Amino acid sequence: MKIGILGTGMVGQSIAEKLIQLGHQVMMGTRDKAATLAKSGKDAMGRPAFGEWIKNNSNVQLGVYSEAASFGELLVNATSGVGSIDALKSAGENNMANKILLDISNPLDFSKGMPPTLTICNTDSLGEQIQRTFPKVKVVKGLNTLNAYLMTNPKLLPEPTNLFLNGNDAAAKAEVKKLLMSFGWNEKDIIDMGDITTARGTEQILPIWVRLWGTLQTPMFNFKIVVGSK
Amino acid sequence: MKIGILGTGMVGQSIAEKLIQLGHQVMMGTRDKAATLAKSGKDAMGRPAFGEWIKNNSNVQLGVYSEAASFGELLVNATSGVGSIDALKSAGENNMANKILLDISNPLDFSKGMPPTLTICNTDSLGEQIQRTFPKVKVVKGLNTLNAYLMTNPKLLPEPTNLFLNGNDAAAKAEVKKLLMSFGWNEKDIIDMGDITTARGTEQILPIWVRLWGTLQTPMFNFKIVVGSK
Repeated sequence: MKIGILGTGMVGQSIAEKLIQLGHQVMMGTRDKAATLAKSGKDAMGRPAFGEWIKNNSNVQLGVYSEAASFGELLVNATSGVGSIDALKSAGENNMANKILLDISNPLDFSKGMPPTLTICNTDSLGEQIQRTFPKVKVVKGLNTLNAYLMTNPKLLPEPTNLFLNGNDAAAKAEVKKLLMSFGWNEKDIIDMGDITTARGTEQILPIWVRLWGTLQTPMFNFKIVVGSK
Repeated sequence: MKIGILGTGMVGQSIAEKLIQLGHQVMMGTRDKAATLAKSGKDAMGRPAFGEWIKNNSNVQLGVYSEAASFGELLVNATSGVGSIDALKSAGENNMANKILLDISNPLDFSKGMPPTLTICNTDSLGEQIQRTFPKVKVVKGLNTLNAYLMTNPKLLPEPTNLFLNGNDAAAKAEVKKLLMSFGWNEKDIIDMGDITTARGTEQILPIWVRLWGTLQTPMFNFKIVVGSK
């Protein structure tokens, strides 16, 4: 499949690597191609910056947001939450119309220091805001509740854990579920939470996620829902 | 130990039953003793109302909030979140001074229908609000992330799951941890998240908890944090 990934950071790179391994064609989208390609050295997490990363991932194409959106039959929003709406506007709703957008973004505000706060919460969510702003797009929120490496390598954890999907379109969620299963996730571990308003719940687990990262001293963890008898 | 439980609902009853089993002395606190004792029939969850429940739990004493607060060497806040500050004011800070308050409450607002929203979130939490309002009390937030039956019967689930503690006083958290271990929790599964500001994270998992209850069609579940290698 042709897949367009909006965002060139750690999440976008992790998803792109996996998709190329699986035989898909990938174009990543950014605001400014030259600036993105010029990024060198290591990023804040010690990972090679995009300009270095792309040298070892030359099958991945790079375009501006609108080119990646137009290229993809399925789209992934891997931009930072505070910039997502602007990035998607730049991608253009017509380029995304009737396509599935797997929305991995989180409304985290790091501008006031650590730990981050949420820019949207409680009675609204970024997933809903994206769906309202781009009604022609089939938004499916998912993968936003765990580290980028684990998104595409669930078996790095010692036992199966859960993913949560939120979205209004059942067929779109089924398609995303198939994609996630190709990443190594078990079908039974992918929980369909319901319509896009259920993204409030999944986005609001980020505050405990961030604190657990500090407490556990590693981002390599995920939530498992253990269910008893009714 | 003498333990005072503020609140006479499902959570308070579940904790009281366990504490009596374990040989503690328990006084439950309420606003209006006569009104609480007059509650009959079943509650919204199909459980016997307090007036019926107390007949089978006659070792449990009932007082007004200030009596229960004065009685207890350790206190439990099992009132509903929207009423917690008022209930604790009625209990009286001097009756609670230097005592541990295990705060199980959640800032859930059901007044606009289901699902509930949070009355406090993101940059503050009910746990912090209680600690700020009653600075002489050693507030330890805990047990607020799972069903009342599971709080005192963790082995009803097929595998160990996690609890989270939030509080400023390390000795108070250690004391609460011992109490929770006497309920059947494993020491290694009780995660000390840090100071009381980390209650933001644990209170904000309630929105996904409520949605999971709907999706899973049972409240008998809990979160397990699965950690990989660093």
